[in-house]
Amino acid sequence: MVMSLNVILQLKLSNRPGTLARVLGVIAEEGGSLGSIDLVSAASNHVVRELMVRLNNRDDIGDLVKVLDGMTGVEVIRVKDRVFLKHLGGKIEIKSKRDVASREDLSLVYTPGVAKVSEVIAREPELAHRLTMKGNSVAIVTDGSAVLGLGNIGPEAALPVMEGKSVLFKKFANIDAIPLCLSVQETEQIISSVVAVAPSFGGINLEDIAAPKCFEIEGKLRNLLDIPVFHDDQHGTAIVTLAGLINALKVVDRRLDNVKVVMSGAGAAGAAITKILLSAGAKDIIVCDSKGAIASDQPPGTNYKKWLAENTNESCRHGSLKEVIAGANVFIGVSAPGLLNREDILKMADKPVIFALANPEPEVNPEEIYDIAGVIATGRSDYPNQINNVLAFPGMFRGALDCHARTINDEMCLAAAWALGEFITGDQLSAENIIPSVFNEGVSPAVARAVAEAAKFTGVSRRYLYEEANKGGLLYSTIKDTMT
Amino acid sequence: MVMSLNVILQLKLSNRPGTLARVLGVIAEEGGSLGSIDLVSAASNHVVRELMVRLNNRDDIGDLVKVLDGMTGVEVIRVKDRVFLKHLGGKIEIKSKRDVASREDLSLVYTPGVAKVSEVIAREPELAHRLTMKGNSVAIVTDGSAVLGLGNIGPEAALPVMEGKSVLFKKFANIDAIPLCLSVQETEQIISSVVAVAPSFGGINLEDIAAPKCFEIEGKLRNLLDIPVFHDDQHGTAIVTLAGLINALKVVDRRLDNVKVVMSGAGAAGAAITKILLSAGAKDIIVCDSKGAIASDQPPGTNYKKWLAENTNESCRHGSLKEVIAGANVFIGVSAPGLLNREDILKMADKPVIFALANPEPEVNPEEIYDIAGVIATGRSDYPNQINNVLAFPGMFRGALDCHARTINDEMCLAAAWALGEFITGDQLSAENIIPSVFNEGVSPAVARAVAEAAKFTGVSRRYLYEEANKGGLLYSTIKDTMT
Repeated sequence: MVMSLNVILQLKLSNRPGTLARVLGVIAEEGGSLGSIDLVSAASNHVVRELMVRLNNRDDIGDLVKVLDGMTGVEVIRVKDRVFLKHLGGKIEIKSKRDVASREDLSLVYTPGVAKVSEVIAREPELAHRLTMKGNSVAIVTDGSAVLGLGNIGPEAALPVMEGKSVLFKKFANIDAIPLCLSVQETEQIISSVVAVAPSFGGINLEDIAAPKCFEIEGKLRNLLDIPVFHDDQHGTAIVTLAGLINALKVVDRRLDNVKVVMSGAGAAGAAITKILLSAGAKDIIVCDSKGAIASDQPPGTNYKKWLAENTNESCRHGSLKEVIAGANVFIGVSAPGLLNREDILKMADKPVIFALANPEPEVNPEEIYDIAGVIATGRSDYPNQINNVLAFPGMFRGALDCHARTINDEMCLAAAWALGEFITGDQLSAENIIPSVFNEGVSPAVARAVAEAAKFTGVSRRYLYEEANKGGLLYSTIKDTMT
Repeated sequence: MVMSLNVILQLKLSNRPGTLARVLGVIAEEGGSLGSIDLVSAASNHVVRELMVRLNNRDDIGDLVKVLDGMTGVEVIRVKDRVFLKHLGGKIEIKSKRDVASREDLSLVYTPGVAKVSEVIAREPELAHRLTMKGNSVAIVTDGSAVLGLGNIGPEAALPVMEGKSVLFKKFANIDAIPLCLSVQETEQIISSVVAVAPSFGGINLEDIAAPKCFEIEGKLRNLLDIPVFHDDQHGTAIVTLAGLINALKVVDRRLDNVKVVMSGAGAAGAAITKILLSAGAKDIIVCDSKGAIASDQPPGTNYKKWLAENTNESCRHGSLKEVIAGANVFIGVSAPGLLNREDILKMADKPVIFALANPEPEVNPEEIYDIAGVIATGRSDYPNQINNVLAFPGMFRGALDCHARTINDEMCLAAAWALGEFITGDQLSAENIIPSVFNEGVSPAVARAVAEAAKFTGVSRRYLYEEANKGGLLYSTIKDTMT
């Protein structure tokens, strides 16, 4: 896939009539779409202008600049990139909820007043959930080892991604999420670092940590901490995939417990999707890694792949993805671009459901298979049915924080998936509409409610529940009780 | 010292005429000052009202509630504490600097656009200072081992204090400070936790960590990290004390290099004040801990007290604080309440300078010694000359972040102290005005400028300086250069 580019060209143009027109002509010839045109400064013999230009292929920017620079009366002063402009100075900041305009304010939010709050929390640490940022904060923790498609780029380079995630947490669930990019990449070091900083936070969102260490890190942290720990690359993807799949199967009139599913990808997402599908009732799943179908008679090396071998592929089929996909009803790819083509999809059962989630290039090109697939979903926003984690993680943490959950368990993930799936009601459901838009404002609250109810039902919520948290009365009386 | 209390009393009052008047009479009799009176709800036979009441002595609240509850037609429903109200839900939150209203916004601040920013930072990690939160963020790190006067109350109970500090960072220096309250208290664990999370931050503010471990933690972190590390309980206090002392000595017409200084307190603050006074030219300092004067012929157990013994008290005097203070020109206390009385101060040299900084109760009661002291400073806001760290740490970090400093060194601390002292110009200087108010908005920028200049002068600032950082032009061209 070619990636587009939005840039702002700052140009010095001689004051001869027609110069701007010639520039616009060249931009059009080079395939650029023009946005706004601003005047930066003007002198007697030249003007400086900024032109917003969109190129469908980012590689064309070099040519365009060269051509413009070669024109008489035109000088390219600077190329400003819109992405970089959006990142200058970072994307998040701290905001005080309380003003400090006077000495009295100071004495209430800081010393000496704050000492009283500290004393109360020292006696009853769970009150930190109500009286501090802890009740609404999540740490977004990464070691930068598996960032987007970029691989192990390290903590500083991961930071813009984590900040973007923080922006989404705030936008979709009003959660205060703090990026913590770690300088350590060893499993035990990551675990001990997260345990060390956990008291400030109401939840831990693990992000872009490579498999297989991500499984051990999440598992141990869940045992060590009394706050929710959630590896979004696993469970966020799994929740949205399950929600979409439930609806896709409705469209093609099948049920999860009687379809044959073939997965491509046995990393963090693949393993988590497999687990949630089994929990939701799927019986026939074959998982392929890059070597082909994982089977229990030829067990793979890592523990989690052994788990996959033992819990899927009951008939112990062998072969490449292209071989085992024959006859399958569902394909779910969280692997690599272009692994399958139209011929492969034709070998599947009638009206196959295709979730080709590799990003930005799917496992099979949707354009090739529109006429033969029952439903197609991708990870991209420019096709219908985008499987996007942002549909799950904000509501998941909102629900967990609202009910002061001790952990996130399978039931809460399943509840989130069902709530998300049910968001598309009967008459809205179609092959091109199996999952709500990320900008649907009702999604996150609906997921949050379902998650908090599941937490309560499974006994992992604490003391006060979703509704009660908003009443306020309880808070004061408890505080009164804890004051000497 | 008695502490005052601001509360809101929610009362159910019968609808008989005169009930509210009787209540107000009782509140006045019990010594309460009345603030606002709100009507919460009204029924046919009663009303619910909220009365804001201030008590000079917080211990009186129990009596007041008892008397009110005993009145005919009056029921105390609830006592809401204004401090707790200010803390409900925490005091800080995350704010997005960029809106995400459309798919295009999403593609610029998150995937796929953000990948380009990550790639650039992966090639040149220092660009994180410009393109992420790192350039304006500070971690406020504590293990909760020495919080205010409360001692080792642990991380959750320390959180409200750290949030208060974050509010001050934002208010006085527009810095985004994130409280990180650690669940570990062992020196090496604290160090490794801070190193692990450092990539997200442009600076580390250590806070309320007990001595002596605080010295080793700060020292090692300064060696391990390429961002400023600053233990505010040490250097913040030391900077403001030095600034105040320079001006106090002007008032009594003395110079730092020819006065005899006696310190009480050899903890974090005492050690740091001693060091900065020596750096600034003081020659004659005796430091007392609870056992009396520290002297090199009877060296104490811990390393940092050995350092004090070797670098102060040249004439090896022995004795209690009350003994060694005789003849001194300056007393600086960062220790415990009520150690000295009027008789002790009378034994000092003429017009002694008294910095009695123990909080909330000073080492000597200012009221006792007004007529015999040259200058008196305390840590309290209700006396003149408040020595308050908030005069130093915001400007210190603002300056360090603005010049992208690798560290904070002694020269930067001294520069901060001089800038702070110079803020009180000749004709404003008096025995009751040696240091600016914490609400003086010019203080933090002045300190920041001095710190950034000292960083540049000592070679610890990076690439672009205070002024250049605000120009913008450099940023784009560098980004352009680093784009392929």
